[in-house]
Amino acid sequence: MEANQFREFGKEMIDYVANYLENIRDRRVLPTVEPGYLRPLIPDNAPDKPDKWEDIMKDIERVIMPGVTHWHSPRFHAYYPTANSYPAIVADILSGAIACIGFTWIASPACTELEVVMLDWLGKMLGLPEVFLACSGGKGGGVIQGTASEATLVALLGAKARAIDRVKKEKPEMSDTEIVGKLVGYTSSQSHSSVERAGLLGGVKLRSLQPDDNNKLSGETLEKAIQEDLEAGLIPFYAVATLGTTSSCTFDRLDEIGPVCNENNVWLHVDAAYAGSAFICPEYRYLMKGIERADSFNFNPHKWMLVNFDCSAMWLKDPSWLVNAFNVDPLYLKHEQQGSAPDYRHWQIPLGRRFRSLKLWFVLRLFGIENIQAHIRKQISLAKYFESLVRSDERFEITEEVIMGLVCFRLKSSNEINETLLKRINGRGVIHLVPSKIKDVYFLRVAVCSRITEEPDMEISWKEVKEAANDVLSKTA
Amino acid sequence: MEANQFREFGKEMIDYVANYLENIRDRRVLPTVEPGYLRPLIPDNAPDKPDKWEDIMKDIERVIMPGVTHWHSPRFHAYYPTANSYPAIVADILSGAIACIGFTWIASPACTELEVVMLDWLGKMLGLPEVFLACSGGKGGGVIQGTASEATLVALLGAKARAIDRVKKEKPEMSDTEIVGKLVGYTSSQSHSSVERAGLLGGVKLRSLQPDDNNKLSGETLEKAIQEDLEAGLIPFYAVATLGTTSSCTFDRLDEIGPVCNENNVWLHVDAAYAGSAFICPEYRYLMKGIERADSFNFNPHKWMLVNFDCSAMWLKDPSWLVNAFNVDPLYLKHEQQGSAPDYRHWQIPLGRRFRSLKLWFVLRLFGIENIQAHIRKQISLAKYFESLVRSDERFEITEEVIMGLVCFRLKSSNEINETLLKRINGRGVIHLVPSKIKDVYFLRVAVCSRITEEPDMEISWKEVKEAANDVLSKTA
Repeated sequence: MEANQFREFGKEMIDYVANYLENIRDRRVLPTVEPGYLRPLIPDNAPDKPDKWEDIMKDIERVIMPGVTHWHSPRFHAYYPTANSYPAIVADILSGAIACIGFTWIASPACTELEVVMLDWLGKMLGLPEVFLACSGGKGGGVIQGTASEATLVALLGAKARAIDRVKKEKPEMSDTEIVGKLVGYTSSQSHSSVERAGLLGGVKLRSLQPDDNNKLSGETLEKAIQEDLEAGLIPFYAVATLGTTSSCTFDRLDEIGPVCNENNVWLHVDAAYAGSAFICPEYRYLMKGIERADSFNFNPHKWMLVNFDCSAMWLKDPSWLVNAFNVDPLYLKHEQQGSAPDYRHWQIPLGRRFRSLKLWFVLRLFGIENIQAHIRKQISLAKYFESLVRSDERFEITEEVIMGLVCFRLKSSNEINETLLKRINGRGVIHLVPSKIKDVYFLRVAVCSRITEEPDMEISWKEVKEAANDVLSKTA
Repeated sequence: MEANQFREFGKEMIDYVANYLENIRDRRVLPTVEPGYLRPLIPDNAPDKPDKWEDIMKDIERVIMPGVTHWHSPRFHAYYPTANSYPAIVADILSGAIACIGFTWIASPACTELEVVMLDWLGKMLGLPEVFLACSGGKGGGVIQGTASEATLVALLGAKARAIDRVKKEKPEMSDTEIVGKLVGYTSSQSHSSVERAGLLGGVKLRSLQPDDNNKLSGETLEKAIQEDLEAGLIPFYAVATLGTTSSCTFDRLDEIGPVCNENNVWLHVDAAYAGSAFICPEYRYLMKGIERADSFNFNPHKWMLVNFDCSAMWLKDPSWLVNAFNVDPLYLKHEQQGSAPDYRHWQIPLGRRFRSLKLWFVLRLFGIENIQAHIRKQISLAKYFESLVRSDERFEITEEVIMGLVCFRLKSSNEINETLLKRINGRGVIHLVPSKIKDVYFLRVAVCSRITEEPDMEISWKEVKEAANDVLSKTA
C-alpha cells in the first residue's frame, strides 16, 4: 500500500469510525452469533495477492460487526467502562506512525519524557502527594502500565525485593528461598481476581481477608492477620487496598490500612482502577484519604478518563526496588545517558512499549480538566438517577451505596429469581448487564459506560429491567 | 471534541503521518536532545479549558519530533526492526473505535474469533505443524501476546503447571513448594534477557548453558545439563531454544534439542521473535527443522512482518496447562458459551486485551503473502549487500554468518578501537547502530530495519561506517 492509497483509506476509515460512534445506539448491544460464527465467513488462507482496501471496508460490516459487543453503546452496562474518545484515537495514529519502542531513554527520548511529564500532570490533577511525582525532584514518579493487573504484579515484585533486602540485613544467615517461602501478602476477598493471580505468578502466599459488614477491608482485620502471621514466623510484606471494587465499587478503609502497613514494613499498593478517575473532582478525594501512606498507586485512565486502552497509570514512591529487581542489562540496551532519565523497561513486565503518553497528552489538552471533571460528574449523576428509578419500584432493592457510576440492585427475592431476571434482560437484547455475588447474595450491576449516555438512555435501560421483571415475576407468581 | 472536528483532525493526522513516513530520510535519525529537554517546552499543568487541535498539530514538530529516534528511517540500524505499515495503522483506528476488551468470548466474539482464525492463517503461512493450529480440531491454537517476553513467561508458567501435575502424580507426598524448589529450566547464555527475567518472575531456577563454537545451543549440552540435574535430585521442566538470537541472529540446534526435551518431559519453548517472520519463505524453513517437537512457538509479526507493535504471535500444543493454571473465574466474567471458544484472558498475563487481530487481517490481506515474502527476501538481500561491502574492505571482519537481515562486523582490532568506532558513527548523526559482545569480542550490528530501505541507503550507511573508521584509525595510527 502506497502513501496515496493510505491517505484515501485512512480518511475513509475516519469517516467510518465517526459514523459508527455517532450512530451506535442503533446497533444491538450484544451480538446473537454462536461460537464459530466467523470462520465460514472468510477464506481458509491468507490471499497470495493483495486484496483491495475497498473490499476490507465492505467486510467490516459483513464479518466483524455481527460479532461485536458494542462497549460504547449507551445500552452497554456490563463490567466497568473502557474509554474511547476521538482525541485518543487520533493520538494513536501518530503513535502508530512514530512506532518507536521506548524501552530506554535513547530509544526515543520524547516517548519517555512525555510520559514522565504526563504522569506529573495527571498526578497533580488527582491531588496525589508530591512524593509520588517526578517533578518533586525525589525518587518518586509515574509510569504507564498496560493494565491494572500488571501494576498489581509489578508492585508485588517491588515489595518482594524490598522485603528480601530488609530481612537479609536483619538475618544474613537466611537464603532468598527461605525468605520467599515465609513472605505473606494481604488483600480483601473483594479485591480484583488479578491480585490472586499476581500472588500465583510471583510465587508468594497472599491471604484473602474478610471485609467488614460494609464490604470494606478494615485496618483492624489487617492488623490482626499481620500479628497472627508474625507470631507464626512468617514475613508480612505486601497489601493491596482497593478503592472501588469490581463487584460493587466499594472503598477499603485506606485511612486505617495505611498506618498498619507503615508500622509493619508492609508495602501498600492501592488499586483504584475504575474509581481513581473520580479523584480529579475534589469532592471525591475524601475516598482516598490516607493515600500518602501508600507505596504505590494505580488507576486506569483507559477505564473512565477518556483515554483508549491501554493506559494504566501507576505511581511509585521508590521505583528503585523495581529497577534493581528487574535489571537485566545487555550491552545493546546500554546508553550514555543512563541514570539521568528513567529507562522504563525496568518498571514493567514486558521489554517493549508503545508511545502511549501521546494519548494522555491529546486527551488532557483537547478536553481540558473542566470537561473531564464534567464527564465524571455527569456519569455519577446518571447512576444516581438510575438508582432513584430503582428505588421508586418497591419490588427492588439497592444492595450497595451508589457512590460512583455503578448501581448494584436486585429483586427482593431469591438468587434464582434474580438469575432468571438477568438472563431475561440480556436475552431481550436491548441492554447488557453482568451480575455479581457477595456473601452469597446475587445481584445485578448497571455501570454507566458510554461517554454519550444521557438520561433518556438510563430510562430505556430501566424500562428494560422493569419489563423483564414483570415478565419473570408473572411467571413465578 | 465532536464528530465533525474528529473528521477534520483525523484526516489532517492521516496526511501528517503520510508526509512523515514518506520524507523520513530527511530527518536526523537520532535526536540531539539531553535528558530533561521536554519539560520546559510544555506547561507544568494540564489546561483547565480545551486547547485547539490545530495547536496540538503545531506542537508535534515543536515538542515531540526533536526528541524522536526515527525507528523507520532507512538510517536506523539499531536493535531489530519494529514493524510499521499503512494497513496496520488504519486497522488500529478501527480497533480504537470498537475499543472492546476481549477478555472473554462474549465480551466481543469477533475479537476472539478473528484472532483464532488469523493465527491459523499465519501458522499455515509459516508451515507450522497442524498440531499447533486451531483448525486441526485438536487442543492446539494460537494467541496474540503483547511481547515475546510475555510469551516466554507464559510458556514457563504452563511448563511449571505441567511439571507440578506430573510430579504430584508420581510422588503424591511432595508439596507444591517442594516441587517448585526443585524445578530447573534451561536456556543458552545467548538467549534474550527476557528469558532470565521470566525465571526471576516465575520464581524458578533457570540455567544458562554455554553454546557451542558457533554460538548455538546443542542437544548434547542440554542433555548433559539435564542428566547432571536429575542426578542431583532436581526436576528439569522447561527449555527455551532461540531461532535468531538478539546479539547475532544465531539459530540454536532445534533438531537436536527437541528430542532431548521430549525424552525428559521438558517443555520446549521456541523463541523466534525476529527471525520467525522469515519462515513464510519456504527456503528458510530449514532453520526451524524439528519444530514439531516444541510445546510452544513464538514470533513477533510486530518486528519484521509489517504489523505494528504490539502483536506477538504464540502457538501452544496444549493451552489447557495455562488455562487451568490461571483460572481465577469471578462471576462477572462467566458466560454461557464458556468452553466452546477460547476465553483468551486465561492465555495471558494481563486481564484486558485490545482487538489486535484486525491489524493482522488488514496486513495479510492488503499485502498478500507474496508481497510479505518479497519484503523479507529484499531485506535479507540488503543485509547480504552490506555484508559484501564490509568484506570488500580488508580492515573489517564479519563476525557471524549473515542469514537474515542482520550484519555483525568489526574492525580487525581491539574492542576499544571498535567501541571508539561505534561512538564516532553514532556521533556523526547520520546512521544509528548498537553494539553487542560475545565471548568478550565486541562487535557492531547493522540491522536492516526500515520497510523503505533500498541499496543506496545501505551504501550511505557503509560510507558512514568507512569514514568513521578512517577517522578512528588515522588518530590511533
